[in-house]
Amino acid sequence: MTESDLPVAQLTPGRWGDPAQVVELPAAALEALKHLGIQRPAGPDVSAPAGTADRTGLTGPQLAFLASVVGSEQVMSDLDSRWAHTRGYSTTDLLRFRAGDASDMPDAVVYPASHDEVSALLAGCAEHDLAVVPYSGGTSVVGGLAASGRFITVDLRRLDQLIELDEVSRTATLQAGVRGPAAEHLLAERGYTLGHFPQSYEGASIGGYAAARSSGQSSAGYGRFDQMVVGLTLATPRGTIELGRAPMSAAGPDLRQLILGSEGAFGIITSVVVRIRPRPTERHFEGWRFESFDAGLTAVRRLAQDGPLPTVLRLSDEIETAVNLADPDVLGGGSGGVLAIIGFDGPYNRATADVLTAAGGENLGEGPGETWRTGRYRAPYLRDPLLDEGALVETLETAAFWSRIPALKTAVTEALVNALSATPPLVLCHISHVYETGASLYFTVICAQSDDPVEQWRTAKSAANQAIADAGGTITHHHGVGTDHRTAYHAEIGSLAVEALQAVKHTLDPDGVLNPGILL
Amino acid sequence: MTESDLPVAQLTPGRWGDPAQVVELPAAALEALKHLGIQRPAGPDVSAPAGTADRTGLTGPQLAFLASVVGSEQVMSDLDSRWAHTRGYSTTDLLRFRAGDASDMPDAVVYPASHDEVSALLAGCAEHDLAVVPYSGGTSVVGGLAASGRFITVDLRRLDQLIELDEVSRTATLQAGVRGPAAEHLLAERGYTLGHFPQSYEGASIGGYAAARSSGQSSAGYGRFDQMVVGLTLATPRGTIELGRAPMSAAGPDLRQLILGSEGAFGIITSVVVRIRPRPTERHFEGWRFESFDAGLTAVRRLAQDGPLPTVLRLSDEIETAVNLADPDVLGGGSGGVLAIIGFDGPYNRATADVLTAAGGENLGEGPGETWRTGRYRAPYLRDPLLDEGALVETLETAAFWSRIPALKTAVTEALVNALSATPPLVLCHISHVYETGASLYFTVICAQSDDPVEQWRTAKSAANQAIADAGGTITHHHGVGTDHRTAYHAEIGSLAVEALQAVKHTLDPDGVLNPGILL
Repeated sequence: MTESDLPVAQLTPGRWGDPAQVVELPAAALEALKHLGIQRPAGPDVSAPAGTADRTGLTGPQLAFLASVVGSEQVMSDLDSRWAHTRGYSTTDLLRFRAGDASDMPDAVVYPASHDEVSALLAGCAEHDLAVVPYSGGTSVVGGLAASGRFITVDLRRLDQLIELDEVSRTATLQAGVRGPAAEHLLAERGYTLGHFPQSYEGASIGGYAAARSSGQSSAGYGRFDQMVVGLTLATPRGTIELGRAPMSAAGPDLRQLILGSEGAFGIITSVVVRIRPRPTERHFEGWRFESFDAGLTAVRRLAQDGPLPTVLRLSDEIETAVNLADPDVLGGGSGGVLAIIGFDGPYNRATADVLTAAGGENLGEGPGETWRTGRYRAPYLRDPLLDEGALVETLETAAFWSRIPALKTAVTEALVNALSATPPLVLCHISHVYETGASLYFTVICAQSDDPVEQWRTAKSAANQAIADAGGTITHHHGVGTDHRTAYHAEIGSLAVEALQAVKHTLDPDGVLNPGILL
Repeated sequence: MTESDLPVAQLTPGRWGDPAQVVELPAAALEALKHLGIQRPAGPDVSAPAGTADRTGLTGPQLAFLASVVGSEQVMSDLDSRWAHTRGYSTTDLLRFRAGDASDMPDAVVYPASHDEVSALLAGCAEHDLAVVPYSGGTSVVGGLAASGRFITVDLRRLDQLIELDEVSRTATLQAGVRGPAAEHLLAERGYTLGHFPQSYEGASIGGYAAARSSGQSSAGYGRFDQMVVGLTLATPRGTIELGRAPMSAAGPDLRQLILGSEGAFGIITSVVVRIRPRPTERHFEGWRFESFDAGLTAVRRLAQDGPLPTVLRLSDEIETAVNLADPDVLGGGSGGVLAIIGFDGPYNRATADVLTAAGGENLGEGPGETWRTGRYRAPYLRDPLLDEGALVETLETAAFWSRIPALKTAVTEALVNALSATPPLVLCHISHVYETGASLYFTVICAQSDDPVEQWRTAKSAANQAIADAGGTITHHHGVGTDHRTAYHAEIGSLAVEALQAVKHTLDPDGVLNPGILL
C-alpha cells in the first residue's frame, strides 16, 4: 500500500475524513482522558441547521449569471451543498459545526470545468456583486474558507486533469482540483511521484497546496510544495497570469513566490507545473530513540546541515513520545527518552544512520517506523471522537532558525499551559520539517473542554501567537494564514509590506471579490 | 589560493577588473582574430570627457540636503567620482566609455554609512527632486546603473560589516556593501564560506547579488544567491521592511522573493541574512570529455536529476571547447568532442564520476580542472584587449526546462549568426547552472566590430532576445533585467504582472525616486 493506492476522501462537513473509516478511541486513551478531567458530553450533531434551506440569498440575475458561465446544473444552492462547503477543519470549525452555526455558509456552490470558466466567473463577479471563495480540497485549518460577508464558493473539483507530463524535464502540469491521492495515481501510472504527503493528503488538492504553501511529511527528501512548483497559471478578475519559463531566473522578482501563499486573495490558481521524480521501488522506515528532545534536536540539526538527509525526518518530544506510544517498551522498557522516525524513499542510507548513532541515537528498528508510516494520516481522524468525549484537541505550528528553536518551544508550551490553566493541558511537540538554517515546531494541545470551548481555544491560541512572535518564530510554517492568523501575520511582516500586498490585490482584484478577509 | 585570499578589485570605469593585472592576448588569439576579419583599430580612450567637470546639475539646497544626511565629505560631485560611477560593464557600456559618452553620468555620488542614513536619504529625495541609483559593486552588465533622467548614485561601500554570525543556525548577516572577496574573508576567519562565486566576484557585492538574483560558478553545490538568502532588510522612501523569521514559512507569499530581483526599484537592500557553510578543507577539480554537446547534456542532466551533484558542473559546446583550449591535445589528440568541468568543495565523490563514465564521459584528470579553476575570473579581463583589437565580444544567457534546451540553443545561435552575417561571428555556448527540471545556457559572441558596434550589438541582441522568447526560455538566468532586458522582461511576465509590480513600486516609492527606468 503506497500513497497512490489511497482513495480520495469524500469529506463530510464537521468531521474529518472518509466516513467509511470508523475510528474509535482505544480504551487506554479513554482512561487517559479522565486524568485531564474530561467528562463525556452529549454526542455531536453536525447536521445542517434547520430553517436555513431557502436562505440562499442570491438573486435571480446572480444565479442566471453563474449558470451562464458553468451551466445551470453546475450551480448548487441547496442546503446540503452549501453546508458541505462551509468552513474547514480546524477544531474551532468542528465546534461551530456542532453548534449548528451556519453564519459563514456560502450562498451557492459553482463547479467550473476549465480555466476559462474560472476566468469568466471572476470577470463577471464584480458586476453581479458576488464575492468568491476558491475551494479545492476544503481542508483549511486556519479559517481559509470563511470569507467575510456573503459569497459563493467556486469548487474546482472538475479541474482534475494531468495536462502534461514532460519526462525529460521531469515536470507535470496538474490542474488545481486534482486531490492528493489522484495526483499520485495519475503520476504512478507513468512511473513518477510528486512526493507531497501532508496530513490532509486524502482530502487536499493541488490548488490548495499551492495557494497555502503546503509542506508534506516527506519534506526532508522532496521539499515543500512551494519548492516543487516551477510554473503556474492564475485566473484573476482582470485576466490571466502565466509564470515559469525556467526552474530559476534573474528576470525580476520571483512572481511565482508572490502567488504561492496568496490563498486566493489575488486570483485562483487553475494549474501548476511541478517537479516530479521517479517512483521509488523500495521504502524503509525506522524508529530511533534519543535520551531527550535536546539530544535528538542536535542529531536532526546535524542531518539537516551536513546530511545525508532521509526522505522523512521527525522528532517527538518527551510528552508526545509518551502519549503516542501505546507500548512504552518500544523505547526499551520504560527508560524514557524520545522517539525519532526516519524514512527513505529508495535504498536505506547507512550514512544517515551513522550520523544518528554518533549523535547518541539508538536504532529501534522498523517496527516503530512502520507503525508511524501506516498511521500517518490517522491523527486527524482521532480528533472527532476526542471531541465527542469532551476533550479539546487542536494543533498549531511555527518555524524558526535553529538557534531560536529551544526557547521558542519553551515559550509556546508555557503560553499554552498558562492560558489553559483552568483545564490543565497536555502539550505535545514534534519537529517534522528541517532546513539547513532552521526547523518547524508542531504542537498538539489536549485538555478538557470548558463551557465555551471556542472561546477557550481563542484565548489559548492568542497566547501562543504572542509567544511565537516574541520568540522570533513565524506565525505558521505550513497551515497558512486564512482568517485565524491574519492579525499575527500582519504584525510579522509589518504595515508597509501589508500595503504592498494590498496594492497587488487591488491591481488584480480591484473590486475585492476574491476571498474578502482572508490573508488581507 | 582560495576565494577568500583574492583582493577586492578597485574597478575603473570602462575597463574590467584590477588595473594592476595586466592582460595581454596570447599570440594565438591575435592570429585567430584575423580569421574573423578583425583589423586592429586605434587604441581606446576611456578617460572622462572634457568639459563636463562642472556639470553636476545639483542645486545648493540639494547638495545641502545630501550633506545633512551623510556629511559633506561623503558627497562627491567631482568629475572623477561621477565618471567612476557611470554605467556598468556590458560591452555596450565599454564602447560608450570609449566614445566619451557621459550622458548617463550621475550628478553626485553619496556614501551613507548605515541603514538609517540610507533610509534618511530615500525619505528626503522626493522633496528634493532627486532620483537615486543604488550602487554596491557597480558590475551590472544589463544597464542596471543607467537610470533615465538626472540622478544621484548611492554607493553602499561603507556598509561593509559582518553584523552577526549564528553558528547554530549557520546564518550570517552581511551588509549590502560587502564585496565578494571581503565577505569570504570575513567568513573564513570564523571557519565558514558563503560559496557564492560569480564571474564578477572580485568587484560585485552582497547587495547586488541580492538585488539582481546572482548565481555563482559553484551553484550546483551551494545554490543561487536567492536560495541562500533567508532574511533581508529593505530601506524604502516610506520606511523599512524586515523579512525572514524562519527558513521557510506559510505566512503568505514569500516576500523575500519579491524583493530579491527587484533591482533597486522597490528600495535599497541594506543587509541580508544568508545561509553559510563550513569552509571546505579540500577541493578537487577535473576535466571530462564527451563525444558531443548532446552527449554531455544527457550526462549533466542525469547528475542534476538523480545526483550526486558536484559543487561545480560546467559543459562547453564544441565551439567553446575548441576556442578555449589552447592545447587541443587535452581532449586526446585532435579527436574533437567537448569539455566538461566538475569540481568538489570537500572530498572527491566517486559516485559522480561513475555517472559521467556511464554516460560516456572520459576522465581527463585534474589538469583541465585546475586550468579552469585558476582562470575562472579571467574571462572578463580578456574582453578589453579584444575590444582594443577591433573585436566585438559580448555574452548573454538564458535558462529553460531540459526538454527545451537543445532547440533553444540552436535558435539563439542561429539568430546571432543571422543578425551578424555581415561580420560572421563565432558563437560559443556552455551550461553552468543546473536544476532538476532545467538548466542555463550561456553564450559568448565574437566577431569583427562594424563601424557602429553599439548598434551592431543592439541588433544582434534583439534577435537573440526574440529567439529566446520564441523558444520558451527566460530572458535572463543570472545577469538581471536592468534597462537592457526591460522590454523582453515585460513581454515574458505579461502586462498584468507588470502592473502588479508597478503597484508594489508605487506603494513603496510613490514619487518614483528609485532607479527610474530600471526593471519597470
